[in-house]
Amino acid sequence: MTDQSEANPKLNRLKAICGEIYDLNTAAALLEWDQQVNMPPAAGQDRAMQIARLNLLAHQIETSTEYGELLEEMTSLRHQMPPESDDFCLLRVLQRNYLRALRIPDEYVEEFSRETGTAFNIWEKARAADDFAMFRPALERIFNLRRQYSEFFAPHDHIYDPLLEDFEPGLKTAEVLRIFAILREEQTALLQEIMAKTPPDSQILAGNFAADKQWLLTKESASLIGFDWKRGRLDKSTHPFTTTINLNDVRITTHIHENNLISALYSTIHECGHAIYEQGIAPELNRSPLGTGASLAIHESQSRLWENIVGRSRDFLTTFYPRIQTAFPETFNTVSLENFYRAINLVCPSLIRTESDEMTYNLHIMLRLELEIEVLEKRIAVSDLPDAWRSKMQNYLGITPNNDVDGVLQDVHWATGAIGYFPTYALGNLISAQIWQTASRDLPDLSQQLRNGNTVALRNWLHEKLYRHGSKFYPSELVQKITGSPIDPKPYLDYLKNKYREIYN
Amino acid sequence: MTDQSEANPKLNRLKAICGEIYDLNTAAALLEWDQQVNMPPAAGQDRAMQIARLNLLAHQIETSTEYGELLEEMTSLRHQMPPESDDFCLLRVLQRNYLRALRIPDEYVEEFSRETGTAFNIWEKARAADDFAMFRPALERIFNLRRQYSEFFAPHDHIYDPLLEDFEPGLKTAEVLRIFAILREEQTALLQEIMAKTPPDSQILAGNFAADKQWLLTKESASLIGFDWKRGRLDKSTHPFTTTINLNDVRITTHIHENNLISALYSTIHECGHAIYEQGIAPELNRSPLGTGASLAIHESQSRLWENIVGRSRDFLTTFYPRIQTAFPETFNTVSLENFYRAINLVCPSLIRTESDEMTYNLHIMLRLELEIEVLEKRIAVSDLPDAWRSKMQNYLGITPNNDVDGVLQDVHWATGAIGYFPTYALGNLISAQIWQTASRDLPDLSQQLRNGNTVALRNWLHEKLYRHGSKFYPSELVQKITGSPIDPKPYLDYLKNKYREIYN
Repeated sequence: MTDQSEANPKLNRLKAICGEIYDLNTAAALLEWDQQVNMPPAAGQDRAMQIARLNLLAHQIETSTEYGELLEEMTSLRHQMPPESDDFCLLRVLQRNYLRALRIPDEYVEEFSRETGTAFNIWEKARAADDFAMFRPALERIFNLRRQYSEFFAPHDHIYDPLLEDFEPGLKTAEVLRIFAILREEQTALLQEIMAKTPPDSQILAGNFAADKQWLLTKESASLIGFDWKRGRLDKSTHPFTTTINLNDVRITTHIHENNLISALYSTIHECGHAIYEQGIAPELNRSPLGTGASLAIHESQSRLWENIVGRSRDFLTTFYPRIQTAFPETFNTVSLENFYRAINLVCPSLIRTESDEMTYNLHIMLRLELEIEVLEKRIAVSDLPDAWRSKMQNYLGITPNNDVDGVLQDVHWATGAIGYFPTYALGNLISAQIWQTASRDLPDLSQQLRNGNTVALRNWLHEKLYRHGSKFYPSELVQKITGSPIDPKPYLDYLKNKYREIYN
Repeated sequence: MTDQSEANPKLNRLKAICGEIYDLNTAAALLEWDQQVNMPPAAGQDRAMQIARLNLLAHQIETSTEYGELLEEMTSLRHQMPPESDDFCLLRVLQRNYLRALRIPDEYVEEFSRETGTAFNIWEKARAADDFAMFRPALERIFNLRRQYSEFFAPHDHIYDPLLEDFEPGLKTAEVLRIFAILREEQTALLQEIMAKTPPDSQILAGNFAADKQWLLTKESASLIGFDWKRGRLDKSTHPFTTTINLNDVRITTHIHENNLISALYSTIHECGHAIYEQGIAPELNRSPLGTGASLAIHESQSRLWENIVGRSRDFLTTFYPRIQTAFPETFNTVSLENFYRAINLVCPSLIRTESDEMTYNLHIMLRLELEIEVLEKRIAVSDLPDAWRSKMQNYLGITPNNDVDGVLQDVHWATGAIGYFPTYALGNLISAQIWQTASRDLPDLSQQLRNGNTVALRNWLHEKLYRHGSKFYPSELVQKITGSPIDPKPYLDYLKNKYREIYN
């Protein structure tokens, strides 16, 4: 980021402070990555304290007088800067974050970080033991802390707004509920229509897939998507995730189950979508608050675009499926590409969100959003969550988990305090279809390229339109810039209708 | 650490600040560990900046007015505390470190940390390419920075004193040179005596040792020494090392070469010796500056005790060697324990310090100490190091490396700025023999226990005498407390004479 800084030592100083905050935050990110990938079991409590401390130090710098004064002075000069320059965008983001950070007391930051660090370890144990009661007290503390957090931003239109704002700047709960109402109606109707048809045969996907061969194939799929191995790595963890230590060190994880190849492959492609977005951010934004994806929904639009719209398409499979056949000939040599394509696009209500198909995924999200709001508003207690989960699952998807591992304990999010996060998954689905629609218009031979295993043109287009900007622009601005429209559920619903009516005749 | 703190909020505050420093330092330790074990290749420069920042922040806190005032006030109360209490010892260490840190400007800390981070990456590349010229500019900067560092402590008796003091509190260069003079004379004479005899047959150790089987055997050897897997992990890196993220997360690394089993095994046992020392520190010292080993020489005494005095003894091999035979029957089924024992204790001047035997190890150290002092005193230039290395190697060991990979580029230490570190290796050898002599007196059935594969009694004895104290006591105090004498080369020389005259008849 060069724009104004040579001329302005105060702006340089401000950026240096951002660098300090960046280093503390990314050190914490590495501690967290390590916690999920490498950390020995007895170190959980210590690690939680270490992460909490780094978060607190970052928060203290971010709310310091020096930083506040520099920021105020520089913000007053912002109107002199070119509106889309790095510096202009940086100051806008810093100002927004600063005003938010000021509302949050140091003690809260430390307590939240420590509680979530501890809760993560408890969640892991509770999940292993299928024992929600073990996790309940920690989860109650987290919901209390999140309620407290919302109150720092009072008055608000909705208790959920300040939580959502952390993940999706500028988005209001009312807007999410409006979009979800449309989705709920149309997607539920479509699901019913589809479920009445004969499903494709997914038994052809059954087999025993040796972990070491799966591992090689997940690496191959990451390479095919365009993951830059010089600037990232792939590991294993219970719950796949992506983390950025810096723009030259973007890490993804996957999980491998010997009885399920599809899970490892598509989890990897999903995380790869996140990673190549981060790896594609302009190098001059590295180590600055702009050097990360614009929001979770924008991020998810990229993971879902590569995982589903590309990864589960006939075009992409034209190249990818033969590699799968080569790795596991005993299972797939007798299975045609067309049958494989239909099988991996089976619509089947399932208990686990991360394994769910495109048709039902958003319904999982609605369930979580409703539960989060109900607990926050104290309409139900944390202790009611397992039952409420079961009843909503039955309601939306017609199935009920037999245990809490497949129910309320399945996701890591609440354990890490990430309440307000789930809606971004569904919004990501919608945005992915909007962006895909635009890309397909701009790149007339995209379909042919993907059939040839060539992902470069699409990646370059995304790089130009989206990746390189990091978080210079707000999510709503980006969606508008790229697609010419605000977030809109119609392209996604159209995509679902076209794809699944064809597969299900 | 409970002693006084309930009664004294200022002492609590001081400890809380120590916690901040600890968290920054250990976050940096994890970033460094990750750099050597996991980091993608393009991230070196970014990582160096991140580590530099954390080191700088820690240094700023450690030299802050609040910290200084609290420390001064608490130090004035120290005489009221029981002399060996945790608080008494903590204040003593803090005071010493504070007075040292005050002399070092922030800019120096940042520059040193950044330069060494960068130099590490350059060293790795230079080593891979056997290209000392590539490394030379970085090494010159490091020696310049170290000279500058010594000057912060002027006046000093010796330019090397302030560097040595960082690793070995209280030890003077003059004392090291005095001890080394004795060693040089006696150890060189002993080496000549031994080299005139017929060597044991070490060809019996040759073979091809599959990496995965070696990996399992290194883990088994770590378990046998008593490594606590719940509170640590083992990984692979170019140069084996131990790092402590906290007392519940102590990590060791090893390296595996398919043509050399002994290297992996004894590197692992060596690092294990470091690790069980750290894992044995009293839990109440965790996350405090006392929660680490007393000094590098004391640390090395433990790694060398387990690696050599225990690990390469007939007693230990009575249990351990059958496991080696089970893992690699094709190589060892026809080799007797006695022949294996003699082979792994072959005296053979070698180019690589870490692979060198007990008889020649200290000579490698003398070489490095002399070169460090000569460069610091500008009696030779950094560009002269490769030649100077070759000539001293010929002088001490009668061999000359054909390339710099086996010469001046072999060790990571200078790349990380650790000048002043090497003498602690030789001192560690001496102390290991002093401690072993005492342990053998206190534990009359030690020999029998080791023959039974029982390492608990020795570990418990070490825990009681040494491990649990962390760095409550200065190295010289500890050696005196445990052995009743100051650092003394005689027990080590006696150990060498007894052991090698017997092996070599």
